Amino acid sequence: MNVLIIGANGQIGRHIVQKVEKHTEHTPIAMVRKTEQQENYQDLGIHAVIGNLEGTVEELASLMENVDTVIFTAGSGGHTGADKTMMIDFDGAIKSMEAAKQANVNRYIIVSAIGVHDRNNWMSKAPYYSAAKHYADEWLRKSGLHYTIIRPGGLTNDEGSGKVKISAELDRGDIPREDVANVIMACLEDERTINQSFDLTSGNETIEEALTNL
Amino acid sequence: MNVLIIGANGQIGRHIVQKVEKHTEHTPIAMVRKTEQQENYQDLGIHAVIGNLEGTVEELASLMENVDTVIFTAGSGGHTGADKTMMIDFDGAIKSMEAAKQANVNRYIIVSAIGVHDRNNWMSKAPYYSAAKHYADEWLRKSGLHYTIIRPGGLTNDEGSGKVKISAELDRGDIPREDVANVIMACLEDERTINQSFDLTSGNETIEEALTNL
Repeated sequence: MNVLIIGANGQIGRHIVQKVEKHTEHTPIAMVRKTEQQENYQDLGIHAVIGNLEGTVEELASLMENVDTVIFTAGSGGHTGADKTMMIDFDGAIKSMEAAKQANVNRYIIVSAIGVHDRNNWMSKAPYYSAAKHYADEWLRKSGLHYTIIRPGGLTNDEGSGKVKISAELDRGDIPREDVANVIMACLEDERTINQSFDLTSGNETIEEALTNL
Repeated sequence: MNVLIIGANGQIGRHIVQKVEKHTEHTPIAMVRKTEQQENYQDLGIHAVIGNLEGTVEELASLMENVDTVIFTAGSGGHTGADKTMMIDFDGAIKSMEAAKQANVNRYIIVSAIGVHDRNNWMSKAPYYSAAKHYADEWLRKSGLHYTIIRPGGLTNDEGSGKVKISAELDRGDIPREDVANVIMACLEDERTINQSFDLTSGNETIEEALTNL
């Protein structure tokens, strides 16, 4: 499977690219914004393309030829304001969904955020961020793509334990970025995760066990 | 018909409330944010309710009992930032659509902005504003409500002439706010405008003639 990772220079993105690269049956295509980021991946022998979520749907679609699965883990980052959140986390995500449809991509997996499906859980300090994530997810659900919506809790840089909790609705909790990537890898292999949405935190079950809760 | 006007204290909203009030077969319900705005309408003998687009869907739905048509002409205003645009022009609009569905409202008419249906036309200085309007419109289209999406050009305070141009796609042009209200009044009477979206500027045709272009 050819897997395009949007946000490949991000912290979760790097974990995903490495894990897809190690997988014998999958090939990563790392989508990054800058030439130096592209060169960093190329130095590792990984195919990397330059793409811009503030560009056009057509440009994004041209990067998705022969792509089977898109993984969206991009974001404007905490240092930017609501304007960039709107244009990247929300509009950019939706443009990549439109592009995926145009390019006949089969699956689309998005990294969302815990609880954003319920307005009662939205961040009081930055509700626009929760809204951006919520509506990108909602859009994906209505897109016709085979979607998986993964809503992790507080992200840490701890090493992944492979032990998680997965459910439609979870109390807040943390999870290592590496385990988010591990769950995504499991989703690639597990067709039951198609057209599913779930919260994700660290827990006591293996990923395979936890996914049977869906 | 009972017509709830969301954004009734705005400049277009005031025109609409007055015109609905004058219409023998329709009754306006002016939704405003502040007690003094409510009292101003009540002094004119107009039914006014306090509602907040940053509140809950349930609160909004409770204001829509026995409402036949919702007209949405609210906005956070040009002085606020992208965060409020996201939460009012976008999320607030969508909450009012969800509320309208819950309350079995029949029609929903939204005042959008010229050209926002095409990303190529989005405002370069404030693309998030265009995005907010675009996606609110898209949501309405998928809502199952009987929608009408009116995308006026540059708004002026000139007196309405009743002469307009209406089409799926127009070059930029201005239009008096009063004529936007006149077009909305015509839409209330004309079932052909159900499930239609159009750009609107001043022009040479009467509103009735222009609506036959749909």
